[in-house]
Amino acid sequence: MLLHYLNVAIAATGIYLPQAVEPSETFDIEWGLRRGTTARASGVNRRYCAGVEETASMMAAAAIGMATDGLPTGLDSVDRLIVASIMSEQPIPTTAALTAARLSLGRPVAAYDINASCLGFLQAVEGAAMAIATGQSHGAAVVATDLARLGLDRTDRTTAPLFGDGAAAAILTPSDGASAILAIALETHPIGGDLCEIRAGGSRFNPLLPPPSLRDYLFRMDGVGLVRLAMTHLPGFIERVLSQAGVGIRDIACVIPHQASRQGLKFLRNWLGPDGPPMVDILATQVSASLPTALHEAVTSRLLRRGQLGLMVGTAAGFGMGAMVFRF
Amino acid sequence: MLLHYLNVAIAATGIYLPQAVEPSETFDIEWGLRRGTTARASGVNRRYCAGVEETASMMAAAAIGMATDGLPTGLDSVDRLIVASIMSEQPIPTTAALTAARLSLGRPVAAYDINASCLGFLQAVEGAAMAIATGQSHGAAVVATDLARLGLDRTDRTTAPLFGDGAAAAILTPSDGASAILAIALETHPIGGDLCEIRAGGSRFNPLLPPPSLRDYLFRMDGVGLVRLAMTHLPGFIERVLSQAGVGIRDIACVIPHQASRQGLKFLRNWLGPDGPPMVDILATQVSASLPTALHEAVTSRLLRRGQLGLMVGTAAGFGMGAMVFRF
Repeated sequence: MLLHYLNVAIAATGIYLPQAVEPSETFDIEWGLRRGTTARASGVNRRYCAGVEETASMMAAAAIGMATDGLPTGLDSVDRLIVASIMSEQPIPTTAALTAARLSLGRPVAAYDINASCLGFLQAVEGAAMAIATGQSHGAAVVATDLARLGLDRTDRTTAPLFGDGAAAAILTPSDGASAILAIALETHPIGGDLCEIRAGGSRFNPLLPPPSLRDYLFRMDGVGLVRLAMTHLPGFIERVLSQAGVGIRDIACVIPHQASRQGLKFLRNWLGPDGPPMVDILATQVSASLPTALHEAVTSRLLRRGQLGLMVGTAAGFGMGAMVFRF
Repeated sequence: MLLHYLNVAIAATGIYLPQAVEPSETFDIEWGLRRGTTARASGVNRRYCAGVEETASMMAAAAIGMATDGLPTGLDSVDRLIVASIMSEQPIPTTAALTAARLSLGRPVAAYDINASCLGFLQAVEGAAMAIATGQSHGAAVVATDLARLGLDRTDRTTAPLFGDGAAAAILTPSDGASAILAIALETHPIGGDLCEIRAGGSRFNPLLPPPSLRDYLFRMDGVGLVRLAMTHLPGFIERVLSQAGVGIRDIACVIPHQASRQGLKFLRNWLGPDGPPMVDILATQVSASLPTALHEAVTSRLLRRGQLGLMVGTAAGFGMGAMVFRF
């Protein structure tokens, strides 16, 4: 774990939501259910659906553009561009290179892709923060962009209504004041790796080496098993990260969780207790884009203000856990 | 660029080569050429070909196993596992999580995937080194694993014979002596992004959103265009990184280049000149696994010995350049 805090600030945030919206009623019709059933069961009323032109790099560039628009130095503050995603837009070049080209930076940047499942954004933030702390970067754009709907099994009533497409970004810069990352930790427990998976669509199963079933291209999740793993491991993990940051949960102004599922958010809310800090609950399940979308919501809703402490936390396939305590 | 050197050592290296070998004569027969023509034209005599069981995570775990076998602390020295690859084994969980499961670590690690095209290994080394320098990690396994042959166009005589499958790893630890990373830089120039690409097989074109042509799943490279870009930009880039490290090319004991192509290696050899340092030239073009395979060759052949300076350098689709000056 981190020995000293990182003198890094989240200077700005931005999001991109696709133009098309699918209401949960579409699932009700598809599945022959009474109107409102899917929305009640999933907790999600609508989801954003990327069109053909809304590729991963297009959405990433738009989210970064929104974030940098709010900075006096704009894109000039960025010499590093990290894209988090569970799947690159194409194998090569990277989504980060494609995004850099869309941004017309006019100069080279360090650009690469990260995949840490739903925790890709936090993993990328760690990389950017370490680069700034060691002087490898003077400012970084971190963006998560995922097309979750691509891999959905429309016959799976527990997962299909949860997910939407989108991108969200944060600009990290050296801190000139109170802002800092007090602690950040990500860990993968090699258990329950098959509780949440998309088996095909990588180098193992693909159009040239087809999977046993076409359904292997689709998302499969044992939500109950995952919530059970989270209930077992997450509270202790959060407490370790808080303790490493030298703060208690009551010092936190706002908890920003990965918007995994209604059950996941409920579990966290219960664990925080009625006297615990407020928690972002927008249930926008966009894989790696979900956590930074919640961060943007925390900032724009002013649930989290400059100088206050935030806690980002989430789980991922694998089984992964990640958390960050930071002074905004 | 880096303000201070990173107190990080490459403690060990390892590789994994698939069991099956394809000689270049296979291409001669396939293309109706006189025996030996393909080997002469490409500079490659044979390539390793992964079988169905030799997945990205299997090869990665084997390469890490070989590297850690040479360490007194074995796998215990590893609390972070970064997998570089142009394509994850499956979208989720990550190849790093699958590799961690194969290694039976019995404890959590920070595990994630990186894609920086052919420079993924160097990008992952930067991440691991920054994590060690900031105290986020006490030891990291960095492994590159690629199944290049999956995306080859067997009718393209200039690229098909170049590529093989494989994995190669390095274990990074805090340095207890002379070992250090003196400078490391990676930059993507948003030019020539279409000179080297695999357009389909990611989130944009896939079995659910098919590409215009099935050939879009295959590798396409304008080798001449890429060598021209490298000739224009690489010498100045290498000189900047050497200068940042405070050394000259004559201080370097061994140059470890990405084994891009015979033309690429020839260009670099000419640029280094007859009095320049020796250069690893094994022409094992395994995408991101190529550079660490060359590093392993440098170490095992004793071209690079403890305490000596090494220079790793390469180019990537995008257009990317990367270099690292380190005391081994």
